[in-house]
Amino acid sequence: MKPWIESELVSKFTASVGFDRKLYREDILGSIAHVKMLARQGLISSQEAEAIIHELEEIRNEIERGEFKWREEYEDVHLNIEAALIERLGETGAKIHTGRSRNDQIALDMRLYVRRVAEQICRAITGVQEAILDLAENRLGLVMPGYTHLQRAQPVLFSHHIMAYFWMLERDKGRFSDALKRADECPLGAGALAGSALPLDPEHISRELGFSRSFRNSIDAVSDRDFILEFLAACSILMVHLSRLAEELILWSTQEFGFIELADPFTTGSSMMPQKRNPDVAELIRAKSGRVFGHLMALLTVLKGLPLAYNRDLQEDKEGLFDAVETVLACLNVLAPMLRSIKVKGENMRSEAEDGFLMATDLAEYLVTKGVPFRQAHKVVREIARYCWEKGKDPKGLSLEELRSFSELFGEDVLESFSAEVSVRTKNTPGCTSPEQVKAQILEAREILSKSPM
Amino acid sequence: MKPWIESELVSKFTASVGFDRKLYREDILGSIAHVKMLARQGLISSQEAEAIIHELEEIRNEIERGEFKWREEYEDVHLNIEAALIERLGETGAKIHTGRSRNDQIALDMRLYVRRVAEQICRAITGVQEAILDLAENRLGLVMPGYTHLQRAQPVLFSHHIMAYFWMLERDKGRFSDALKRADECPLGAGALAGSALPLDPEHISRELGFSRSFRNSIDAVSDRDFILEFLAACSILMVHLSRLAEELILWSTQEFGFIELADPFTTGSSMMPQKRNPDVAELIRAKSGRVFGHLMALLTVLKGLPLAYNRDLQEDKEGLFDAVETVLACLNVLAPMLRSIKVKGENMRSEAEDGFLMATDLAEYLVTKGVPFRQAHKVVREIARYCWEKGKDPKGLSLEELRSFSELFGEDVLESFSAEVSVRTKNTPGCTSPEQVKAQILEAREILSKSPM
Amino acid sequence: MKPWIESELVSKFTASVGFDRKLYREDILGSIAHVKMLARQGLISSQEAEAIIHELEEIRNEIERGEFKWREEYEDVHLNIEAALIERLGETGAKIHTGRSRNDQIALDMRLYVRRVAEQICRAITGVQEAILDLAENRLGLVMPGYTHLQRAQPVLFSHHIMAYFWMLERDKGRFSDALKRADECPLGAGALAGSALPLDPEHISRELGFSRSFRNSIDAVSDRDFILEFLAACSILMVHLSRLAEELILWSTQEFGFIELADPFTTGSSMMPQKRNPDVAELIRAKSGRVFGHLMALLTVLKGLPLAYNRDLQEDKEGLFDAVETVLACLNVLAPMLRSIKVKGENMRSEAEDGFLMATDLAEYLVTKGVPFRQAHKVVREIARYCWEKGKDPKGLSLEELRSFSELFGEDVLESFSAEVSVRTKNTPGCTSPEQVKAQILEAREILSKSPM
Amino acid sequence: MKPWIESELVSKFTASVGFDRKLYREDILGSIAHVKMLARQGLISSQEAEAIIHELEEIRNEIERGEFKWREEYEDVHLNIEAALIERLGETGAKIHTGRSRNDQIALDMRLYVRRVAEQICRAITGVQEAILDLAENRLGLVMPGYTHLQRAQPVLFSHHIMAYFWMLERDKGRFSDALKRADECPLGAGALAGSALPLDPEHISRELGFSRSFRNSIDAVSDRDFILEFLAACSILMVHLSRLAEELILWSTQEFGFIELADPFTTGSSMMPQKRNPDVAELIRAKSGRVFGHLMALLTVLKGLPLAYNRDLQEDKEGLFDAVETVLACLNVLAPMLRSIKVKGENMRSEAEDGFLMATDLAEYLVTKGVPFRQAHKVVREIARYCWEKGKDPKGLSLEELRSFSELFGEDVLESFSAEVSVRTKNTPGCTSPEQVKAQILEAREILSKSPM
Repeated sequence: MKPWIESELVSKFTASVGFDRKLYREDILGSIAHVKMLARQGLISSQEAEAIIHELEEIRNEIERGEFKWREEYEDVHLNIEAALIERLGETGAKIHTGRSRNDQIALDMRLYVRRVAEQICRAITGVQEAILDLAENRLGLVMPGYTHLQRAQPVLFSHHIMAYFWMLERDKGRFSDALKRADECPLGAGALAGSALPLDPEHISRELGFSRSFRNSIDAVSDRDFILEFLAACSILMVHLSRLAEELILWSTQEFGFIELADPFTTGSSMMPQKRNPDVAELIRAKSGRVFGHLMALLTVLKGLPLAYNRDLQEDKEGLFDAVETVLACLNVLAPMLRSIKVKGENMRSEAEDGFLMATDLAEYLVTKGVPFRQAHKVVREIARYCWEKGKDPKGLSLEELRSFSELFGEDVLESFSAEVSVRTKNTPGCTSPEQVKAQILEAREILSKSPM
Repeated sequence: MKPWIESELVSKFTASVGFDRKLYREDILGSIAHVKMLARQGLISSQEAEAIIHELEEIRNEIERGEFKWREEYEDVHLNIEAALIERLGETGAKIHTGRSRNDQIALDMRLYVRRVAEQICRAITGVQEAILDLAENRLGLVMPGYTHLQRAQPVLFSHHIMAYFWMLERDKGRFSDALKRADECPLGAGALAGSALPLDPEHISRELGFSRSFRNSIDAVSDRDFILEFLAACSILMVHLSRLAEELILWSTQEFGFIELADPFTTGSSMMPQKRNPDVAELIRAKSGRVFGHLMALLTVLKGLPLAYNRDLQEDKEGLFDAVETVLACLNVLAPMLRSIKVKGENMRSEAEDGFLMATDLAEYLVTKGVPFRQAHKVVREIARYCWEKGKDPKGLSLEELRSFSELFGEDVLESFSAEVSVRTKNTPGCTSPEQVKAQILEAREILSKSPM
Repeated sequence: MKPWIESELVSKFTASVGFDRKLYREDILGSIAHVKMLARQGLISSQEAEAIIHELEEIRNEIERGEFKWREEYEDVHLNIEAALIERLGETGAKIHTGRSRNDQIALDMRLYVRRVAEQICRAITGVQEAILDLAENRLGLVMPGYTHLQRAQPVLFSHHIMAYFWMLERDKGRFSDALKRADECPLGAGALAGSALPLDPEHISRELGFSRSFRNSIDAVSDRDFILEFLAACSILMVHLSRLAEELILWSTQEFGFIELADPFTTGSSMMPQKRNPDVAELIRAKSGRVFGHLMALLTVLKGLPLAYNRDLQEDKEGLFDAVETVLACLNVLAPMLRSIKVKGENMRSEAEDGFLMATDLAEYLVTKGVPFRQAHKVVREIARYCWEKGKDPKGLSLEELRSFSELFGEDVLESFSAEVSVRTKNTPGCTSPEQVKAQILEAREILSKSPM
Repeated sequence: MKPWIESELVSKFTASVGFDRKLYREDILGSIAHVKMLARQGLISSQEAEAIIHELEEIRNEIERGEFKWREEYEDVHLNIEAALIERLGETGAKIHTGRSRNDQIALDMRLYVRRVAEQICRAITGVQEAILDLAENRLGLVMPGYTHLQRAQPVLFSHHIMAYFWMLERDKGRFSDALKRADECPLGAGALAGSALPLDPEHISRELGFSRSFRNSIDAVSDRDFILEFLAACSILMVHLSRLAEELILWSTQEFGFIELADPFTTGSSMMPQKRNPDVAELIRAKSGRVFGHLMALLTVLKGLPLAYNRDLQEDKEGLFDAVETVLACLNVLAPMLRSIKVKGENMRSEAEDGFLMATDLAEYLVTKGVPFRQAHKVVREIARYCWEKGKDPKGLSLEELRSFSELFGEDVLESFSAEVSVRTKNTPGCTSPEQVKAQILEAREILSKSPM
């Protein structure tokens, strides 16, 4: 193979500018802070600094207008921008990389990027939370069957069920914000791995860029990608939540459940079957959990067993991260309006919730209040259930006599407890499914959102 | 197949007591708190409560003495203990499950377990950090080649290099502690999913067990396993760090690097080759990252697309978690003494650090201080390096004349900068590799450990 | 830390006998073949060979009777057996390891193990396939709604639907058998990595143990774990299939679908809710896919970036594999009787299949036979569907006039096509859902099973 | 949110044409076969068939010339092409989707795609194998230290070591070809899931497209993605191999090992450190294993627990697959020339191989030939090694007297065995490291390649 063919092959293989150009904002932001510091430390003159900063801003504008010419032969976003600078400013431009390596530069860019997108994700999560809150508030009082093992378990409020997702998402935000806490350390000044012999001032750059502190160990600073792993883990857990919600939306909109109807824009038809209204959006959300888990697994693999300090392997931290960010944002952004537009078929929920078997636990707890030990009460009601299965009866239809044939402790009042609405009303301890408690829950949730920084 | 054979087959398939018995401490702790609450709320008498608590403690003792008879037909740790209670206390024992489901009970046990082991892991991490600190302190001043891409890059202090792991581990502790923060919510009282119609007091139990708060949504409370995912993610990132350190210990103890010697107990021989001293411990630590990543992936898969609330799938949250905990603890506990016992071959490190090519960056930065733009200085020194490669020379051996043939700005003083010790001394900004900064770094680290709760 | 404490700690950390003793059968089998070869090559006498073989068989018996004393200080299964041999036979026993390393020995054991369990798994798969075939045959003719996107799509035969799993499982067997093909290479004689200077005869051992050929490269022979990766990948894909089937069993046994009833032994109750019959077995099968995926990911991680030849990291190939084997076998073995015992609620399936919307595609294809281009026919029927939604009508209830208002090409005969049974009967090309084709399918499947080696 | 904004948001979220257009070749190929079958069955006229085929070929040309206008509002590759057809041919174009669903269409496209790229990958693997063979042949006779645990073990031939990768890659090809075997089933005619009421001829299409057989179950045919899972598993195992080779290239090109030099085009410099020649290409190959594992894990997750038949989740089978294909091909294509261009520093390898400790096993086997049981011989040589460590001697430097002080069985001839070249020469059983055996190995390998179909 001819050397130049090899060169081209290799440059195609190693070049990252095709994807890391996405970091141009962060790269320029970091360079400006670096240049200011260089000037402050007398390593370049303030005129030089001004010229460079002006040109960097110009380049940013060109990029945003789509006018900047990215060149693969300059390998990455850093060298593309530096090359443009040198082309325009000559010797002055050639000074920008003073006391800096691409190793600390990319570490900085990635931290700035993660900071930016984590905040964006948190805002998008809030959007979904608000849709959930509105849904919960609008349908307060509506009973539905609660499920365990996908078998009907006990009546719950629809609002209570849907609010479960609110809290999952609230924890997700906590995870992103904790990940940011640990990413909040400026690596610039760590150089290639050892720092620089020049009189740099890393603390100054750190403050300038809004970090809480500068790096504490230059070798760690250039080889640490924990913050990306942690971010991807937070994304994965978030996607678990979205996949669970998506699964429920899919189930609820089957003909068999019939609990909700997704609005037209969120369903699609079939190329063959004219009658279809498929929940494709929810299915894709469910499925996209896979790719985010995959990106987490990919980066864990990349980092496993890697010696210090920087290795080119670290370049593989980017595409998966970028795709995870896009995926998570797209899912959140489509989920919020989808939730807002679902038509809740309250009548179906309510009527299924009236299934008398769902009150079996209430029956057992009724007996407990009459002094029967719970384990024994459970047995009695199990017998009643078995009797009903055999007779093909709903427990609701049992007469007091029939009930009393299982336990004499059943009194008149037991009959009125065979109602989903009564059942939920009695679950009145904090966090449980009575309308009163669910109202309190929604209130607390609203307050949390109103105090949330984003 | 005969029904009873099926039953046995199924009970073998579904039973979890073989592994969840590990939770007996937590299960009994939770039951005691539950019973106290039941008494306080008048749901059982205080004599009953006392009898139950006494018997639970007795059962705990028996378990710890290895005398308790676990029975697979009772499926899990909860039913085994409840069955023993009923056997011993009759009707009184049958009251313990009042207002409780295994769904909220296991959610509680798992949270208590994660709390306990996370603290244990943090203590074990501290043990490794202390070993690192002692090593760093003992060999302060020792230079070694710093690497990027596993190619020699610049001289660094050995102490600086090893301290990079201190900070990784410090972040790991942060992650465990943040995970605990989110696990710090007591789920007892959530019942099967809806709560209970009995007048329970979940807040009371929560306080009794040292949680910050009780659950806010009963459906979420029984189906949430975020805290395990997050814990496994923290374990995985920790294992990334340990695998990187293990890789370096393996490399450093090759005949080719010759930087350290592992103490005899941490190496093993070969069944065929009599001369071998293999770094098996380090290799196993490196490899064990895989199983921890695998457990994380497993639980993400389990939870993907699972409808609310409890599903039996959640039982699969245990074995992977238990194994991850054991793996992480075993690695940390063997790593600390291994680090303490390595013999640092300082002479080898030092002599390799004197490789003149490692001072190339210093040469370039020398030129920068003489006013040459960095990018240009870099080119000049690249030329010098190329010249040395061709001549087969160490740059250190170049005469001033030879150097000046590349740039007239080289003065006499450049020659004395060809020393690894001088090189590290000049990297004197915070976080960098000069002895002064590394001393400060160690001091800060010591202070952090001394303030750390565990 | 005292050296002996360290030693113990390390030996606990590195010892594998706790799990690799599971390989005793393979280890002894391999040793016997090795000893025979040694005698044949004159490296030991035939009396020595006989004595060793006799003692090895004795040890195997002791292990199987539970009388053999495993000792952790002998690290692994190999040294435990060798130590027992030396203890019993003195100098003669000390000859067994001639020309052999644990590196080639364990590679052999693992190949023999994978061969044995892959065959076991294939037999268990056949058991499930037979259950599927019987189910399909017994209910031939029963229509049910076919689903795409979990929305009702077109009527299909229940037998056709369930037969889909037959073919998935058939491919699974193909994968195991292909994996075996590549594992079918005997590594004994590769020594530690280079072979041996003694006049061994690897081909002889290979034949003796039933392999197709001996290793072709000794370094590859001791460091290759492809066959385990491939086996775990086959297990993972199999678990995907089982998880899909489990999901459907769970859905079908909900109150909402009501298509099947799982037999009592395959459901479990709730500790709180007396009425519950939960499909725990199916849920666990679904969930256990996670742990198998995790084991695959774990070993991929372990092997990533590992230099040749043997590294202790390879010890981590065992526990995940053993657990995957047990998991897969347990799932298959419980699934077969569960499938045999489900009660198919044919009436429910049939009546849901009569939903007129399911015949929409038939309507469109009716128009195609009248010369309407499909895309246009699709549009016409879409209009009909929309009309029915708005009117709240089942398309079945439309009069010929109503239909003709959408297209004049509808004739009398269209009305009789509104039947699930007619619909499936018309899908009469090979592989499709007509009773005739499904019968042929079942026949072909039976024939495949009858020819299958296991 | 306005409906049309929602629509746009959703269409952006669900559209796949951005990536599935990569399947245009396969899509058109499949459509042509479908159209021919429709004509043959009299479902369209032969003029119509001709017109459609002509236009499809025209569209393919436009796509290849970059002139075809892809439109996101047409969602995917299928609808884009169908829309263009209708636009150009009117009613005739509207007939193409007769008896076909996108469900069977995409299943076909994916199978054709996997078939095409698997063959491409096998060819690229062959390219690497040839480079390995040439390297092995060129340096036949060169000794180097063989390693286990990255500790020097025994001398081996460099050619033998590098040939280990040949066999790994040969197995990889076997896996791809077995995966193809199972993908070799034509799904067209399965329709949405049930087949079609029209008189299609799936067997005809299958033959036309070069498949061995048509689908056997229409539901399986549209929901099966096993062939992608299996393909991704094969890619993952291949990447394990490449990552191991990359790791060794990185190690060997360190200053410490000094065994090879990568040619200039395959190394890159540092933006800060002028002397660096980093093995970036090898590092990226090593790292890229992660993303491929991640894609496998992603699809396993997607498919887990998915009910039959087609679900939109399956759309997530594409991007990961496409990226895996590109990654694997890029790695193979850059690896082949990189291997061809490495400069083997034979002198360094050879001199390190002469390390006398590497002959310890030979010493022990020497004693075995004198009648000492191996385990005892091993102990004697262990003592000799220990003696040398303490004295700081190379075993090679021991006098016969010193050796005889450990065992009187050492004779004069033992001294000449202290040579790496002698050592490898004695490993002369098939598959081992003697020049004779390695030559035979290379010969067999060449023959395999010459017979390989690609």
